[in-house]
Amino acid sequence: MDIRTAPRVIALALMLASGIAAANEALVIQTDFGLKDGAVSAMKGVAFGVDRTLPLYDLTHEIPAYNIWEASYRLYQTLQYWPKGTVFVSVVDPGVGTERKSVVLKTRSGHYIVTPDNGTLTLVAEHFGIEAVRQIDEKLNRLKGSEKSYTFHGRDVYAYTGARLASGAISYEQVGPLLPAEVVKIPYQPAVAEKDGTLKGTIPILDVQYGNVWTNIDDALLTKVGINKGDTACIKIREGDVVKYDGKAPYVSSFGDVPEGQPLVYLNSLLQVSVALNMDSFAAKHQVQSGANWHISLKKCS
Amino acid sequence: MDIRTAPRVIALALMLASGIAAANEALVIQTDFGLKDGAVSAMKGVAFGVDRTLPLYDLTHEIPAYNIWEASYRLYQTLQYWPKGTVFVSVVDPGVGTERKSVVLKTRSGHYIVTPDNGTLTLVAEHFGIEAVRQIDEKLNRLKGSEKSYTFHGRDVYAYTGARLASGAISYEQVGPLLPAEVVKIPYQPAVAEKDGTLKGTIPILDVQYGNVWTNIDDALLTKVGINKGDTACIKIREGDVVKYDGKAPYVSSFGDVPEGQPLVYLNSLLQVSVALNMDSFAAKHQVQSGANWHISLKKCS
Amino acid sequence: MDIRTAPRVIALALMLASGIAAANEALVIQTDFGLKDGAVSAMKGVAFGVDRTLPLYDLTHEIPAYNIWEASYRLYQTLQYWPKGTVFVSVVDPGVGTERKSVVLKTRSGHYIVTPDNGTLTLVAEHFGIEAVRQIDEKLNRLKGSEKSYTFHGRDVYAYTGARLASGAISYEQVGPLLPAEVVKIPYQPAVAEKDGTLKGTIPILDVQYGNVWTNIDDALLTKVGINKGDTACIKIREGDVVKYDGKAPYVSSFGDVPEGQPLVYLNSLLQVSVALNMDSFAAKHQVQSGANWHISLKKCS
Repeated sequence: MDIRTAPRVIALALMLASGIAAANEALVIQTDFGLKDGAVSAMKGVAFGVDRTLPLYDLTHEIPAYNIWEASYRLYQTLQYWPKGTVFVSVVDPGVGTERKSVVLKTRSGHYIVTPDNGTLTLVAEHFGIEAVRQIDEKLNRLKGSEKSYTFHGRDVYAYTGARLASGAISYEQVGPLLPAEVVKIPYQPAVAEKDGTLKGTIPILDVQYGNVWTNIDDALLTKVGINKGDTACIKIREGDVVKYDGKAPYVSSFGDVPEGQPLVYLNSLLQVSVALNMDSFAAKHQVQSGANWHISLKKCS
Repeated sequence: MDIRTAPRVIALALMLASGIAAANEALVIQTDFGLKDGAVSAMKGVAFGVDRTLPLYDLTHEIPAYNIWEASYRLYQTLQYWPKGTVFVSVVDPGVGTERKSVVLKTRSGHYIVTPDNGTLTLVAEHFGIEAVRQIDEKLNRLKGSEKSYTFHGRDVYAYTGARLASGAISYEQVGPLLPAEVVKIPYQPAVAEKDGTLKGTIPILDVQYGNVWTNIDDALLTKVGINKGDTACIKIREGDVVKYDGKAPYVSSFGDVPEGQPLVYLNSLLQVSVALNMDSFAAKHQVQSGANWHISLKKCS
Repeated sequence: MDIRTAPRVIALALMLASGIAAANEALVIQTDFGLKDGAVSAMKGVAFGVDRTLPLYDLTHEIPAYNIWEASYRLYQTLQYWPKGTVFVSVVDPGVGTERKSVVLKTRSGHYIVTPDNGTLTLVAEHFGIEAVRQIDEKLNRLKGSEKSYTFHGRDVYAYTGARLASGAISYEQVGPLLPAEVVKIPYQPAVAEKDGTLKGTIPILDVQYGNVWTNIDDALLTKVGINKGDTACIKIREGDVVKYDGKAPYVSSFGDVPEGQPLVYLNSLLQVSVALNMDSFAAKHQVQSGANWHISLKKCS
């Protein structure tokens, strides 16, 4: 090697070295595929083929089949704990092969979500804001040789495009044309504080592993109506018009603040009001489920 | 540092940098261990101990216990989406500790599979071809200190050997002696087109998460007998001699091309004929399962 | 670039390159959260945010809810297959938000475990020894902005601290103050050899996927009472005082050494005495479970 070429070589070495350390954003994948077959691994193989140094992670693959609402919630629950620049791929896609649009949302928080625009973006769009929405140009952004496959966009389009975006092989602009800054939304009832100090909200999701009941009522609303740690809350849970639970529980910091088997009100890991039993399943005991039809009201017991 | 040594140092830096970026092939692991205990993590610890920069991925760990056929199918389903050079470790090993051979197959597509030769290689050998088969020399290729363990070759031999091969610590030749270019095969009925235009095949596997029925009839056979998009297919599914389903469905591109709950025929993500219900489980509704004893026939309805 | 600065730049390139290849220890995470929601992914996002080059792996997330004993067993089962320096995070934490201590144990084997000190460390402390125990100083070692969250220490404290320790962002000393070299222990009955050659032990865990029964009797005890390969063992399994199994089985190397469906005694992958059926579930057939109340005795049949 001629010593005169050293600077160029050094620059290359530095580019390589720093490129390895810093250039790639994480690709985080969510599906309703489960882990029993080869589908998720095929997606990861495609992503690895795009760039071998890409950090590849899972959100979950256990979204119940076709449950777009839950896909939306899991993105909302997790997104903020990954750094700005992270690319999420979410594939809950009952309409695969039909006319729903394939898009990449850039949030105001600087995260990207690659997904069919079928309601999956409802909660992240609302909570983290829409910076821009681009439609995936499948002529450019589709795995070579997959043109005959109509039923696995997760592998052929979304994993491929997500990996190219996270690795810097394409810029956000190269995803495809800009769309209006809006996404398909699943309607749901926001939480409200009524004049008499009653909080009303819904049960968007259960903390499934433990049977805790999560609501969409945040800590600011609790403060607004003057419910403080140590107060006892009167709680009513309804499925439509049918009352499933009518009881009271103290508002505390954590499970161990009440005896085993007793109910409590606490702020969950997203700082939203939740109801649980210490060391037992509130949802199982009172047959509570989640969804747009599940309502909760809460006020300080008089 | 003397400037005269710079070229050598630069070369070293380049080797290091490019080595990190490119030397390692991915190691992709499949087992029937499930994820409830520490077995898969112990395998990954062994592989990580061989080389900390090895890209380590999962195919699935939810193969039903002892189900060699399904192991074979999942490898076939996934292999081609990982780059040439990828090393797969597959451990579905009811005969662990007995005389079945431990081998590494190199396919003609340039992939490696580390596995007991017990039928696991049936479908990859047929579809991707046998370049060579080598028997693992367990005197050289076994985790140090594991000699007393007879029941966890997955950790002690397969993960260890796979990681050494993927990282370049050993060459393919160093795996062990060359065997004849053949593998143990599970017998099964290939798909055929009969003279009257009827396609006959089997149901090798279900798309378990959604209840779709996958067959071993490929799109070339469909074309051969003149079934085209928009045609209606007459379908009969039998378990042995017992008819489990006798009906008709349109051949379409994807699920959304028929109303919810209605049957369809489509090409799955491996471009093989499949039967499904839009947004429902065909397998559950008609009690269809998979295996050598499950037959399907299909022809254009007259 | 001035050629005179080359040496400094080369040194930097080398540091970068070698740093990427070698500086990070693995972070291995275990929880009872399951994989259905976003909790594990949020923990990984926090760890990735600490250091993008951190090797992140799972032990298992399927510890049954609140089962501290099983958490302890899975760490014991897996730890030694990961290199010295590996940092484990274990979150089975029914007392989250209460007064149990958050600690990092350094074992004599050079591994670290980040966990609530609630019994989780019972088996690793006994088998691998206590080098030191430090309490996590949550003023320094807590994710910024998480101060209001009391119920997800796994994300806010344990994943964050584990990632900082594994990446070298903090030293072990910077975790927090030294505690006495002891951990909270779950009481259990060690295995013993009686004078008449009977071995008595407990069933700490099942090999859940296959239904094999694992005991805490190691191979040294077998040797001590003169039970050798080929001998037949007389086995009795009790739940408390109730006999659940009373039978005999040969002591062999592996499953295939007996006909399908027949019982065997073998050394499991941790070299401890185990009882199984070849290709069937011993635990299911004889309704055997695991825990402190499950006893086994074993002697050479006369």
